[in-house]
Amino acid sequence: VVKREVVRLITPGTHTEGKSVDSKSNHFIAAAEELSGGFSLSYIDISTGESTATYIMGQGKALLQELQSLGIRELVVSDSLFLLLNEDAQDLLLSIEPMEFLYELDGSLVKECPAELTGSSHRLLTYIARTQKQSLEHIQPFAYNEEGQLLSIDFHSKRNLELLQSIRGAETKGTLLWLLDETVTAMGSRKLKQWLHQPLANKSRIEVRQQMVESLIEHYFTRVELQNALKEVYDLERLSGRIAFGSASGRDLAQLRSSLEKIPAIIDELSGAGNGRLSDFAGRLDRCGEVCELLEAISDNPPLSAKEGGVIREGYNRQLDEYRDASRNGKDWIAQLEQQERQKTGIKTLKIGYNRIFGYYIEISKANMHLADLERYERKQTLANAERYITPELKEKETLILRAEEESLNLEYKLFTVIRDEVKQYISRIQSLASTLSALDVFLSFANVAEKYRFTKPDFTDSRDISIVGGRHPVVEKMLNRQHYVPNDCILTEDSNMLLITGPNMSGKSTYMRQVALTIVLAQIGSYVPADSAKLPVVDQIFTRIGAADDLVSGQSTFMVEMLESQYAITHATERSLLLFDEIGRGTSTYDGMALAQSMIEYIHEKIGANTLFSTHYHELTPLDQSLGRLTNVHVAAMEQSGKVVFLHKVKPGPADKSYGIHVAELANLPQKILSRARELLTTFEAEKTQQTRQIEQLSFFDDRDTDNEEVIQ
Amino acid sequence: VVKREVVRLITPGTHTEGKSVDSKSNHFIAAAEELSGGFSLSYIDISTGESTATYIMGQGKALLQELQSLGIRELVVSDSLFLLLNEDAQDLLLSIEPMEFLYELDGSLVKECPAELTGSSHRLLTYIARTQKQSLEHIQPFAYNEEGQLLSIDFHSKRNLELLQSIRGAETKGTLLWLLDETVTAMGSRKLKQWLHQPLANKSRIEVRQQMVESLIEHYFTRVELQNALKEVYDLERLSGRIAFGSASGRDLAQLRSSLEKIPAIIDELSGAGNGRLSDFAGRLDRCGEVCELLEAISDNPPLSAKEGGVIREGYNRQLDEYRDASRNGKDWIAQLEQQERQKTGIKTLKIGYNRIFGYYIEISKANMHLADLERYERKQTLANAERYITPELKEKETLILRAEEESLNLEYKLFTVIRDEVKQYISRIQSLASTLSALDVFLSFANVAEKYRFTKPDFTDSRDISIVGGRHPVVEKMLNRQHYVPNDCILTEDSNMLLITGPNMSGKSTYMRQVALTIVLAQIGSYVPADSAKLPVVDQIFTRIGAADDLVSGQSTFMVEMLESQYAITHATERSLLLFDEIGRGTSTYDGMALAQSMIEYIHEKIGANTLFSTHYHELTPLDQSLGRLTNVHVAAMEQSGKVVFLHKVKPGPADKSYGIHVAELANLPQKILSRARELLTTFEAEKTQQTRQIEQLSFFDDRDTDNEEVIQ
Repeated sequence: VVKREVVRLITPGTHTEGKSVDSKSNHFIAAAEELSGGFSLSYIDISTGESTATYIMGQGKALLQELQSLGIRELVVSDSLFLLLNEDAQDLLLSIEPMEFLYELDGSLVKECPAELTGSSHRLLTYIARTQKQSLEHIQPFAYNEEGQLLSIDFHSKRNLELLQSIRGAETKGTLLWLLDETVTAMGSRKLKQWLHQPLANKSRIEVRQQMVESLIEHYFTRVELQNALKEVYDLERLSGRIAFGSASGRDLAQLRSSLEKIPAIIDELSGAGNGRLSDFAGRLDRCGEVCELLEAISDNPPLSAKEGGVIREGYNRQLDEYRDASRNGKDWIAQLEQQERQKTGIKTLKIGYNRIFGYYIEISKANMHLADLERYERKQTLANAERYITPELKEKETLILRAEEESLNLEYKLFTVIRDEVKQYISRIQSLASTLSALDVFLSFANVAEKYRFTKPDFTDSRDISIVGGRHPVVEKMLNRQHYVPNDCILTEDSNMLLITGPNMSGKSTYMRQVALTIVLAQIGSYVPADSAKLPVVDQIFTRIGAADDLVSGQSTFMVEMLESQYAITHATERSLLLFDEIGRGTSTYDGMALAQSMIEYIHEKIGANTLFSTHYHELTPLDQSLGRLTNVHVAAMEQSGKVVFLHKVKPGPADKSYGIHVAELANLPQKILSRARELLTTFEAEKTQQTRQIEQLSFFDDRDTDNEEVIQ
Repeated sequence: VVKREVVRLITPGTHTEGKSVDSKSNHFIAAAEELSGGFSLSYIDISTGESTATYIMGQGKALLQELQSLGIRELVVSDSLFLLLNEDAQDLLLSIEPMEFLYELDGSLVKECPAELTGSSHRLLTYIARTQKQSLEHIQPFAYNEEGQLLSIDFHSKRNLELLQSIRGAETKGTLLWLLDETVTAMGSRKLKQWLHQPLANKSRIEVRQQMVESLIEHYFTRVELQNALKEVYDLERLSGRIAFGSASGRDLAQLRSSLEKIPAIIDELSGAGNGRLSDFAGRLDRCGEVCELLEAISDNPPLSAKEGGVIREGYNRQLDEYRDASRNGKDWIAQLEQQERQKTGIKTLKIGYNRIFGYYIEISKANMHLADLERYERKQTLANAERYITPELKEKETLILRAEEESLNLEYKLFTVIRDEVKQYISRIQSLASTLSALDVFLSFANVAEKYRFTKPDFTDSRDISIVGGRHPVVEKMLNRQHYVPNDCILTEDSNMLLITGPNMSGKSTYMRQVALTIVLAQIGSYVPADSAKLPVVDQIFTRIGAADDLVSGQSTFMVEMLESQYAITHATERSLLLFDEIGRGTSTYDGMALAQSMIEYIHEKIGANTLFSTHYHELTPLDQSLGRLTNVHVAAMEQSGKVVFLHKVKPGPADKSYGIHVAELANLPQKILSRARELLTTFEAEKTQQTRQIEQLSFFDDRDTDNEEVIQ
C-alpha cells in the first residue's frame, strides 16, 4: 500500500495552471480582517507573486463588491468573519483559516503597510503555506497605496462606466479596456488591468507615466522595434512562480533564457533613441546576467518533462557527455550488428528492435526462418509471423546502453534541479524586471492608442477646473464610424462647477457624462485623452449614478438602488470628486422625484462643492441657476428633419426647449385639440413654477438654526 | 439536346415543401392593390389552399406591418405599388405581376368578398397560375370578415402584448400562443395562430366557440379519446394541396386514408358523450366515404415513389394481379432451376443471379468449373473468381418475367394516377373536414388549458362594463411559481371607465395592464380566461402604448415612437375599444410630458369614452378624478420590509403614496438635510399643484367656441 499524503490543496484561489486560468488576467486569492468601520484586505496572485494590501471602508457588502470587481473567487477568513459574510457571499468561496498552523510572517513582506493591515496578510500567507506546502519565495512585498495616492471609483461606478467589464455581463467588448489593450504580453495586459482598476491620484506619479507615453509617441520606429522585441518575451512573472514552486520544466527555463536574451536589444533600442527619458528607463532594466549564465546549461529545445533527458546542453558537464557517448556508441554498435546479421543470414528483412520488456532483440520472419543459423540465437518471443531472438553479445551491449542512459537521465535531472534552485535566488530581480517590462508594454499600448485615435496629452492644473475641448467618448467613437461622431466640450470652473443637463431621451446625455468621466480616468492612469485639448484637475473620487441596466428582476426596486448609489456618492464625495448623476428621481412619481433631485443638487452645491454633471428630465429645475451661483444649464440639441426628430448629439448652453414633447407630438400628428390643450396646460404649469421658484428661493436651505445631525462623512 | 422548359418557379411565397417550411405555421403569399385610404390585401397558403381577403387602412407602412405580423415574405404587386413600397420593404420580396397572362378569375372564389377586394385576389391567382403552372383546384374561396366581425389589434399592440411573438424577437416562449398551444395536429396549431391573429368581435360567434370548450371541459374522457384520435390524423390540408398539385405520392394517399379511417371513431366519441353540442358538432364532420372507397385500392405501406410498384393493393385489379403472378411464377421457376442445376452439377455454390445489364445468369466459381457441363451453357461474363453463363430457357423465362414486371409497373402507375385524379374532385370536402377537425383540436387545447390553469368562462354583457375578479397574467403566472402570483381585480363601469394607475417602477403596473388586455383577447378567441370570474363587453379594438423594448438604437427618438403610437390609438379608438397607455410622456421633460398626458386623458375621457387604463409617474395627475367624472385612481402597493422596498403586486384603490420616493431615500440613508429639504419642497409643489388644479378646472376644455379642425378619424 502506497502511503498517500496531501501534497497540495487546489482551491479556486490557488488554482494557477490549466485551461480555466486566463493568462492575461491576474488570479488573486484574498484574506480580510475586520477593522473598526471597515476591513483590511490582502490579496496575492500566487502564479506571479504580486501582492497588495488595502483598506475597504464600509459594510461587508462593500468588501464583497471590491472582491467581485477584482475577480476574486476565494477569500480566507476567520470563523467570525465567515458568519458575517456567508449569507451574501454567493459565488465567492469563503475558506476559514484557523491560524493553528505556525507560520512566521516575514516582516520584509509587509514593510510598506500600516500595522493594521498585517493581520489579513498574515492570515493569507498562513493559509497558502498550509494548503500549498510549497515555497513562497516568489511572493513580493505587499504593495500599499497611501490614502490619497489612488483615484477611488466604487464598484457600481466602475460597472456603469464600463472600465473593465461591460454593463451587460462579463464581456470585454465595448469597455475602456477593450479600447486600450494593445499590449503584446500577458504581463502587460495584467498591468493595464491593474492600472485601470486603480488609477492614480498623485500628479507627479501620473506625469511620470505621461512622459514615457509622450516619448514613445515621438519615436515611432523605436516603438515598433520595442513591441516586436516584447512579443518574444514570455510571461516572466508566471515563470518566476513556477520556479519558486519547483514546478518549472526545462522548457520553462529555456523560455526564461530566451526572454532574457531579448533584454539587451530592448535596452539598446531605448537608449539609442536619443531621448533622455527612454535612456533613463533603459537604466531600470536589469539584464540579469547571472541568470543568463546559469541558463546556458539548458539545451535549445528541451522537452516538457525534465526526466526524459535532453534538458542539459551538450558540453556542459563532462560526465554527462560521457554517458551520452556510451549510449550513442552502443546504439551505433547495434546498427552495425543489424547489418552484419543481414549479410550473414542473407535475410534482408531481419531487424533489431527494442521493447521495454524484452530489451533489444533480433527479429526474423517465419518465412525466412530456414535461412537463420538458429544455434547462435536464443529464442525470446514468438509472434504470429515472426520469431524474436537474443544473443549474449547483444544483451551485453544492451546492459551497457541502458545503464548509460539511466545514469545520463539521473545526472541530467540532478543538474537541472541544481540550476533551477540556483535561479530561485534571482526571482525578485526577475520579478522586478517583469514589472518594468510590463509597464513598458502598457506605455507602448497607450502611445499606439493615442496615435490611432487622435488622443491628446492632458495638462494637470492645481485648481479644480475642468476644460475639455472637442472631447469624445472613445469607445462609442470606435464603435461608430468616426465621421459620425460629434465631439463636445466640457468646461467647469470654480464659478461654474455644476452642469444641469436637459434634453430628450436617447439624445446622448449619458454618453456625454460618461465621456467626461472616462477622460478623467484615462488621464489618471497616465494615458492621453480623447479630446482636442484638456486641462484637468487630479480627481480623488468618481461617483456615478447612471441609468442602471435592469439586472434586478427580483423584488428590489430600481429606485431603491438609485437612492443607495446616490447616498453612497453624497456621503463620500469631497470637493475634489467628480459626480455624475443621471436622471435622479425618474423611478418615482414626479414631485417627490423632483423634490429629491432639487434637494440633492442644493446639497451638493452648498455642502460638497464637487464638480458635478446632473442630467434630468425635470425641466422645471432649470431656473435653479438663478439661486445656485455655480449651477449652469446646458442641453443636448435635437432638430426636426422631414417630420422626424434627429438628435445632433451636441451639447449647447442653456436649458432644452420646454415644449419639445409637444412639438414631437405635433410631428406625430396628434389631434390639434390635444396639442392646443397641452400648450395651455404647459403655460399654466410654467407660470406656477416661476411663482413657486420665487417662493422657494425665499426659504433658506442652509440657515444656522438647522442643527439636524450631520450625516456627511468625509 | 433536351429542351428544358420552366415547369414551376419557386419563390419565397410559393415554396411549400422542405425543411424551411414549418408545418405548424401557415405560409402565405399575398397580393395588394391600392384603394382610397388604404389597400386591399389577399393572401393564400398554397400548401393548404386557405385564402383570405381583407382591407388594410392607412399608409404603406400599415400594409407592411400587417404582412410582417402574418409572417408573409412575398407580396405580389403592380408596377406602381412596387415603387411605393420598395424603399420600406426590407425582407419582403415584392414580385411584380403585370397581368399579361390571361387568367380568368373563378367568381365562386370571391363570392364572399366586396367587389373592391377582387382586384388583389385576381392578381394573386394570376401570379400563382403563371408561376406555378399547376392546378389551383384546392384554393378555397377567399374568406372575408365584414367590418365589426373581428377584434382589431394593430401591429405594435400585438407585439407589446406578446400574442404570437415575444417582444425580444421571433421566439414563441413567453407568448400567449406558447401558453395556449396544446394542439396535437399541425392543422390545429395553424388554426390557433389564425384565431389569435384575428380574435372575433361578434358575440354569438364567440359564444359558439365557448360552448364547445365548455362541453369538452365537462367530458374529460371524451377529450382524452378525441385528442388520441386526432394525433393519428395527418395534415389533411397539406395533403389536399399535394393532391391538387398532382405531387401526392402513394404514401400521401395512404396517409389520407388512414386519417379518414379515424373519422368514424371521432364522430362516435362526439355523439356518444351525451352532449347535444358535441353531437351537433359530430354532424358537421364529413366521413368522406367516397374517398375512403377510392383509397381502398392503395396498399398498406406504399413506397415514396409511385413508379416503383407496390402502391396498389393485391386484388384490386385482375390484370395487375395477373402480371404480378406471372412475375412471381417466373421467379419461382428460377429458384427451382437453381436447385436443379446444383443437383445436376454437384456444385453447391452454383447460384442464379440478376443484374441490370446481363439479366439473369448462372454463376459458377472457377474452382468448380471442371464439374460443370459447359456445353449446356453460353458464357456471358468472366469475373476474377467465377464465370457467368446463360441458357436459352433461362433467357426465355427472363423475358417473361421482365415483361410482366414492366407491364405491372405501368399499369400500377396508371391506376394510381386515376385514383389520385378522382380524389381531386373531393378536395373541397376534405378541406372542409380538415377545417372542422382543426377547430376541434383548438377547442380541445382551450379545454385542457382552462382546466390546467384554472381559467373561468367569461360572460359577455351588452354594456361596456368590465368586471374581472381575481384576474391573472396567464403567461407570467405560468413562468412564476403559482403560489407567488398575486391576482388582481379590474372593474370598469359606465360611471368609471378610466383607471389612472400610479405606483413605483417595477411594481407591476404594466403586467396589470397587459393581463386585462390578454383576458379580453382570450375571451374573444373563444377561450376561457385567467380569473375567478369575468363579465366582459365585446371589444372592437385594443390599442396599447406600453414601454417599448429599446429596439431603436438608431436616431429615431423613442419619444417620437411613443407619440406615433398614441396618435394611432387616439385617432382610431371608439367607445367600444380598450386603451392601454403606459407612462405616456416619460420620454420628454416633466411639464410638457405631463401636459400631454393630461390633455390625452381629457380627450379620451370627453371625446372617445373608451375603457382606458392609464399608468403614470405623474402623481400630479391624480387630482384629475375631481374634474373627470369617470376617472378613478388606483395604485400598486409597496411596503417596507427590513429596510428594503418590497412590491406587493396588489392593485388598490386611490393614488399611490405621494412621498414614496422620499421614503425610499430615507431607507437608503440619505443625509437628513436632504430628506427634510425634499419634504419641504414636496409640500410646496403639492400646494402649488392644488391651487393650479383649481385654476385649470376653470378653463373649459371642450367649450363650444373651440372650432379647431377635428382630426379624429373614425
